[in-house]
Amino acid sequence: MEKLIRRIIERNNPTVVGLDPTLDYIPAQVKAEAFAEYGKTLRGAAHAYLTYNKAIIDAICDVVPAVKPQCAYYELLGWEGVKCLAETISYAQEKGMYVITDGKRNDIGSTMQAYAAAHLGEIEIEGERCVPFGGDALTVNGYLGTDGIKPLLEVIGDNPDKGIFVLVKTSNPSSGELQDRKLGENETVYAAMGDMCERWGAGKIGRYDYSKVGAVVGATYPAQLSELRARLPHTFFLVPGYGAQGGGAKDVAGAFDQNGLGGIVNSSRAVLTAWKKTGGDGRDFAQAARAEAIRMRDDITSAIPPIHSPAGI
Amino acid sequence: MEKLIRRIIERNNPTVVGLDPTLDYIPAQVKAEAFAEYGKTLRGAAHAYLTYNKAIIDAICDVVPAVKPQCAYYELLGWEGVKCLAETISYAQEKGMYVITDGKRNDIGSTMQAYAAAHLGEIEIEGERCVPFGGDALTVNGYLGTDGIKPLLEVIGDNPDKGIFVLVKTSNPSSGELQDRKLGENETVYAAMGDMCERWGAGKIGRYDYSKVGAVVGATYPAQLSELRARLPHTFFLVPGYGAQGGGAKDVAGAFDQNGLGGIVNSSRAVLTAWKKTGGDGRDFAQAARAEAIRMRDDITSAIPPIHSPAGI
Repeated sequence: MEKLIRRIIERNNPTVVGLDPTLDYIPAQVKAEAFAEYGKTLRGAAHAYLTYNKAIIDAICDVVPAVKPQCAYYELLGWEGVKCLAETISYAQEKGMYVITDGKRNDIGSTMQAYAAAHLGEIEIEGERCVPFGGDALTVNGYLGTDGIKPLLEVIGDNPDKGIFVLVKTSNPSSGELQDRKLGENETVYAAMGDMCERWGAGKIGRYDYSKVGAVVGATYPAQLSELRARLPHTFFLVPGYGAQGGGAKDVAGAFDQNGLGGIVNSSRAVLTAWKKTGGDGRDFAQAARAEAIRMRDDITSAIPPIHSPAGI
Repeated sequence: MEKLIRRIIERNNPTVVGLDPTLDYIPAQVKAEAFAEYGKTLRGAAHAYLTYNKAIIDAICDVVPAVKPQCAYYELLGWEGVKCLAETISYAQEKGMYVITDGKRNDIGSTMQAYAAAHLGEIEIEGERCVPFGGDALTVNGYLGTDGIKPLLEVIGDNPDKGIFVLVKTSNPSSGELQDRKLGENETVYAAMGDMCERWGAGKIGRYDYSKVGAVVGATYPAQLSELRARLPHTFFLVPGYGAQGGGAKDVAGAFDQNGLGGIVNSSRAVLTAWKKTGGDGRDFAQAARAEAIRMRDDITSAIPPIHSPAGI
């Protein structure tokens, strides 16, 4: 998690761009070229995604600290799409970006160990070390309890830069069906999940005072965001729901501490489809994404304390 | 879900073999051939997995109704592994098996729609219809509520054979950390999740009286299995935890109704590594898997009511 926080401070920007491509988001020219070469196939679509992603990354990498590719959109193109995911992760890292793989993975024991090694680690094949995906952080679902989280922490080990984000209070309208249910008098399911994040992260707190175990908390529930910020002092928040889902800069402000740290706010659609609002023909898609990323940065930094390293670092 | 139940009745076998390969499970000869051709690489390992999986499928397909490939083990080999997953799914279906893709996927809205289409549906690419993975059922995590489930049901639509299995009470030791917590006086988190499965499945009940929305309930908690069977009359159970994790035939019996239906019990390790106990050199791995699959079938059918179609079908 430290590398992420360092990048946020360096770029003075607590936002992450969700790389969630769909065919509808990609300008006609990019698709036409890919389909001409590879056909109207999963492969052709995956090539269009990759061209698109690389151009977006090139356009934002000096402004935005991180990208968050959402696995679902790549799996939708079968293994060709998953290959594009791996290539996107590598490319973003080459360009100095922190990569949060949004897979919301969950399982137990040796199976979770496999997910952990797949997305955050490596595998040894008869003495040869291979990196399957090589992300920096992974989103996970904690419904299965500690058995689902421990394998991740084992794979991360002492690496200060890797991390996980556990779903705590998600941004969607029906998140309360389970997450808001009361456990006894005063505790909700989401608060209990948040407390587990603090416990899982205990002993793994880095130089910025946040642990390797972060939490996903939606921008669409600002009161819960502030409540959880106070309750979970060492848990870094990944905040979806800004922009298209309805959350504004004031709504996300509760995620941040007095140093302007503690959270990173995601935007996908508004950045990826910014070109649809420029009046152009789509050839300006990367520049439009950059402009929207800068607008978002300025919007959010104007609503939170100035970003700086905690005293003594 | 109907196709699964039909296959269970036809084969008189309520079990599923988990196709969870690891390099350690694969006999030396199979690995040596793959590494000789493709190197000690992710690609080489993926080819070893595929050869191994196909031989296992060939050996069990007339005895066992379904296979359950666990995504994590394929992702561990990067996109080459995910390609092997897609090929394994196709091969098992060609051989007449029902395929439950064990991905425990979860997200919301258009993202969940992408997962649903990826694993249970298709994508249209400029008028061409493509099938990304083509599984018959998918395991999912319901922590996000209805927003995470509805897109799956939309993609499944009227297809009577497709289905989902929602995590309710998992087989691992720490599953109770959240799942056993009490919501008010008498209800647990897992029971609340089970009730949501019944609600999500309402109106989608097929000819065998079970809906398209199943639940994952572990063999390691037999009391909860019986409790949930009584509580969730239209929810079909996928039961992990038999064998290596400690559950026996008597422990899983509570999953079944008076027709011997209502559940399917998974075994992975015991089937996949049966060859290690034959005293052979590993060349008998497929036959050993078949023998263990038959043993498991006989063990479980001896502990439950005779399997038959409900009256009137």
